[in-house]
Amino acid sequence: MPNRPVLDFWYEFASPYSFLSALRIEPLAEAAGVSLRWRPFLLGPIFAAQGWSTSPFALYPSKGRYMWRDVERRAGRIGLPLVRPETFPQNSLIAARLALAGREAGWLPAFSKALFRAGFGEGRNIAEEAVLNAALKEAGADPGTAYAASRSEEVKGRLRAEIEYAKSLGIFGAPTFVTEDGEIFWGDDRLEEALDWSRHGR
Amino acid sequence: MPNRPVLDFWYEFASPYSFLSALRIEPLAEAAGVSLRWRPFLLGPIFAAQGWSTSPFALYPSKGRYMWRDVERRAGRIGLPLVRPETFPQNSLIAARLALAGREAGWLPAFSKALFRAGFGEGRNIAEEAVLNAALKEAGADPGTAYAASRSEEVKGRLRAEIEYAKSLGIFGAPTFVTEDGEIFWGDDRLEEALDWSRHGR
Repeated sequence: MPNRPVLDFWYEFASPYSFLSALRIEPLAEAAGVSLRWRPFLLGPIFAAQGWSTSPFALYPSKGRYMWRDVERRAGRIGLPLVRPETFPQNSLIAARLALAGREAGWLPAFSKALFRAGFGEGRNIAEEAVLNAALKEAGADPGTAYAASRSEEVKGRLRAEIEYAKSLGIFGAPTFVTEDGEIFWGDDRLEEALDWSRHGR
Repeated sequence: MPNRPVLDFWYEFASPYSFLSALRIEPLAEAAGVSLRWRPFLLGPIFAAQGWSTSPFALYPSKGRYMWRDVERRAGRIGLPLVRPETFPQNSLIAARLALAGREAGWLPAFSKALFRAGFGEGRNIAEEAVLNAALKEAGADPGTAYAASRSEEVKGRLRAEIEYAKSLGIFGAPTFVTEDGEIFWGDDRLEEALDWSRHGR
């Protein structure tokens, strides 16, 4: 669709607020006339650069307790089931590589949504092959081909490059929305504002 | 006003998002039929308990840069002038004690709004006596009496107790809104939701 503004949607498979955005962004973007670029990345290296060994929600208990309650309320308001995974944050490396392996073939968004539903809607382990396979199949991807691509140097390098690019933009959390004119919006609660900016703010 | 739900509004004079909430909360609460309890406190001791020597916005540059841009956008949308103070975060100890000295006399909210306007609307130093005096006068308080009370053991203890109580509730940032049934909402962007919960959620 030419001339539509494009909004970059940066997300992390282990991030609860990314889960909320991934499962509500498409109809909102469609209504706003905005095209989406789904950009999975990893927060781990970005947190590490700030001196954090893990998610701030895991490092700071009161922040973590609040986050789960807040996500529960927000999920409830949009009718989304939420089941907390046993470990938090989950290891999302393979998930991110697999998603990027599907960028050209076009199943990246469908795979991402399916995996978010498994991870936070059902509390499943998104590092497990069975869970990843189910999400691939739901997205219409062939697991064999997808895994082979995800292990290639090309896709591994792609993920590293995305993370470096995110860092260079000043991204420090997820989800983050970046408009074509470089405006940055952080958090599921800024999604509407980001779409609005994409449409009018340019 | 009996039978009106009460919402606790916890804020910190050095917090930019508290500034936004303080200057927009009253008409929204009025429209929602909710009474407000203004509760100034200090984030310093709460941050210190998490191992931070200062505000996370000062500790993590990309987070800090984003925060100012976000606050600028939000202030712009509600037509509020924003001038970044030279130092951040500012020392808000005297401000918080003075505010609590005006709790019974009733000038606490007016003083708070005047001081927020000075601190973030004009970028002035809220630890300076001239700035504090102007806010006191604007709120109809007598500076001499207010200062004397703010230096009393009673008011100092009152502030310490408020901070301990905030900690015990799991408050880790500002602004934070707490409903009568103990529901916690963190951030200026949760103000509407908090008022809504106060009215309907009980």
